[in-house]
Amino acid sequence: MKGLKGALIFGQSGGPSSVINSSAAGVFIEALKHSDVITKVYGAHHGIKGILDEDFFDIGQEDMKELELLKNTPSSALGSVRYKLKSPDVDETDYKRLLEVFKKYNIRYFFYNGGNDSMDTCNKVSKYMQKSGWDINVIGVPKTIDNDLYGTDHCPGYGSAAKYVATSIMELKLDSTVYNTGMFCIIEVMGRNAGWLTAAAQLASYAGLGADLIYLPETPFDIDEFLASVKKVLDANDNKCMVVVSEGIRNAEGKYVGEFTASKTDLFGHAQLGGVGAMLAQMVKEKYGVKTRAIEFSLLQRCAAHLASKVDVEEAFACGSEAVKAAINGETDKMVCLIREEGKDYVCKPQLMDVALAANTEKKIPESWILPAGQGLTKDFVDYALPLIQGDCKAPLENGLPRFARLKKVQAGNK
Amino acid sequence: MKGLKGALIFGQSGGPSSVINSSAAGVFIEALKHSDVITKVYGAHHGIKGILDEDFFDIGQEDMKELELLKNTPSSALGSVRYKLKSPDVDETDYKRLLEVFKKYNIRYFFYNGGNDSMDTCNKVSKYMQKSGWDINVIGVPKTIDNDLYGTDHCPGYGSAAKYVATSIMELKLDSTVYNTGMFCIIEVMGRNAGWLTAAAQLASYAGLGADLIYLPETPFDIDEFLASVKKVLDANDNKCMVVVSEGIRNAEGKYVGEFTASKTDLFGHAQLGGVGAMLAQMVKEKYGVKTRAIEFSLLQRCAAHLASKVDVEEAFACGSEAVKAAINGETDKMVCLIREEGKDYVCKPQLMDVALAANTEKKIPESWILPAGQGLTKDFVDYALPLIQGDCKAPLENGLPRFARLKKVQAGNK
Repeated sequence: MKGLKGALIFGQSGGPSSVINSSAAGVFIEALKHSDVITKVYGAHHGIKGILDEDFFDIGQEDMKELELLKNTPSSALGSVRYKLKSPDVDETDYKRLLEVFKKYNIRYFFYNGGNDSMDTCNKVSKYMQKSGWDINVIGVPKTIDNDLYGTDHCPGYGSAAKYVATSIMELKLDSTVYNTGMFCIIEVMGRNAGWLTAAAQLASYAGLGADLIYLPETPFDIDEFLASVKKVLDANDNKCMVVVSEGIRNAEGKYVGEFTASKTDLFGHAQLGGVGAMLAQMVKEKYGVKTRAIEFSLLQRCAAHLASKVDVEEAFACGSEAVKAAINGETDKMVCLIREEGKDYVCKPQLMDVALAANTEKKIPESWILPAGQGLTKDFVDYALPLIQGDCKAPLENGLPRFARLKKVQAGNK
Repeated sequence: MKGLKGALIFGQSGGPSSVINSSAAGVFIEALKHSDVITKVYGAHHGIKGILDEDFFDIGQEDMKELELLKNTPSSALGSVRYKLKSPDVDETDYKRLLEVFKKYNIRYFFYNGGNDSMDTCNKVSKYMQKSGWDINVIGVPKTIDNDLYGTDHCPGYGSAAKYVATSIMELKLDSTVYNTGMFCIIEVMGRNAGWLTAAAQLASYAGLGADLIYLPETPFDIDEFLASVKKVLDANDNKCMVVVSEGIRNAEGKYVGEFTASKTDLFGHAQLGGVGAMLAQMVKEKYGVKTRAIEFSLLQRCAAHLASKVDVEEAFACGSEAVKAAINGETDKMVCLIREEGKDYVCKPQLMDVALAANTEKKIPESWILPAGQGLTKDFVDYALPLIQGDCKAPLENGLPRFARLKKVQAGNK
């Protein structure tokens, strides 16, 4: 069955990335080509919250040039949100309201761009609308620098963040070893439960300028092993050592090593992490008396669009446009996923999978790719990740600085 | 008088930058053209320390392709040092040793690349050798991301660091304001006493994606004014506020605001700073209950060669080659400086000035360019700084990652 004639609404959710707007560009530019079927293209302000509040923009009024610039504009241009829908069995309020808004604006296409939590939202909304008899095509568009979405070879956003991590580690390796004195440098990378982004440090090692030790959340972190490994490196290496550590490392009991800095949890009940690098640096300083420097990539790793991977920008766009093409062909209840072809050359195309499969399932790094005692990852990981960081693709320069998209954001809802 | 026939030694000193190796490339590539006069080209391992230890490399044995790659390789490829020569009136030991090494290897050209402290080294060595009757051409090559060298319009290294700061602030501005919830984001920028690099935040404002408040070390920092200004921004702006602050801000009594984190001083007696951003974030969080994020650019701002300014890379190279050209024409006791021509278009050429003038003098931002109460800088600053960040120039990619120079570093000293 082909998709019905009606409006499309697209929302961005969760932590942004360098290329999440490229997916938005993919959705918008493709959708605007199909005005025979898609009567209106709306961009939700702050994701699902914007739909609940009738707060969304008329994308048809944007200049095509600015929509093209979205490809290289970091962060979520429509505004993001962290809003978890309750199960409809517990509280139907939000779902009823969504149905009301969908009916009012004849919304027949709902696309949501995000990670696990966003796919959960897609799944719940899709199932509820099916039950309610409101004919709507729901497609999830994957996004997360964490790369932990189940069912897709990788996630748009990961390649660019990985390229940032690997490039910055190479540069920091040269900088932090420049003096004739000792230096312990520790770099903290995002990734609560999956170490994909921290693992990108291995790409710097592959390029010959890597860290000495890499610690992922997949492997229980042992403080004594860590201190012993650091000592070994310091002794062998002119009192210099560089470590890359995930914010999410946990001890054998499953407790976050950085937990004492976690003063509160976020809306999803996740512990707010940060500072584990500084804590470990302090321990090394006290124990070995070496000068230390703790560096957090913080938000930089997810918004450094000036260092985006061309492969990533293009795949993010393709995932967005594929969502539209699939939906007008009648597909619903799906997530766009990237499936890599077998063979020597990297070929990866957007396909569809059941959104329910992706909802709330975290994909971790295969155990067999992880070497023990902070020694990094195997060549399997490099073979997997290297194709994802290829090529440069960034915003044009205006006065030496990036010219990012400037949307008019014409209000189209009855906010 | 033309320079004598003999060897040249070049050293890098102080904190590195994205383009300090471009000056090295300028020196080496130019010097190797003059083998009739310059019999050997040495690169000192860890600056002046390498000369004292007879630890230096034979640059003539490097591949020209790798020397070209130095232009886009961050950090100090020869190794840097923080070593302060005592006044010869107090202790002549080091100077006697330098003279001994200069004589042993017939070193007739000594070039030193660095900031204020390095120019002080140049000046002292030059004066001592003159007194000793050892005929040597001493030229200082300017370098510092701090941009605080007296006598030059600006310093190689500044433009690239400024471009990094401005670009990253634009990206962070988009990222940190993405949610429908409040956010106080504070970014800490390097610069102990001069605010040039922090001021680069104004370029992001000029591009339309700037911070709300900018605090420089040139203006006494008042905590009550700061908190009041932050409150005003939060109230006017959906509980969102972005602040850029120099690590070196001081109160009216001249005490570093981040002083409580300064557990020790470095070799030059400078306080080791860091953490003032996190401290201010904590204060804002406690007072206004808003979510906060403190980001330190840390070493990233001085080694992000992937975001170097083309103008900066080329000027750094020109300063290096100019030093060689001047010295073989008999110039000594000088620093290469950049002099900007009057007029609408940016034209800036390397010239020479007395190295004594640059030694230990810090150039601060003109008071008239600084607006009160964290409101940033005037258009005069933008007109000054904008030409320095123009154009991109970075290392070629190999497997999606930068291909930095790989020197053979053939030992040429009797280490």
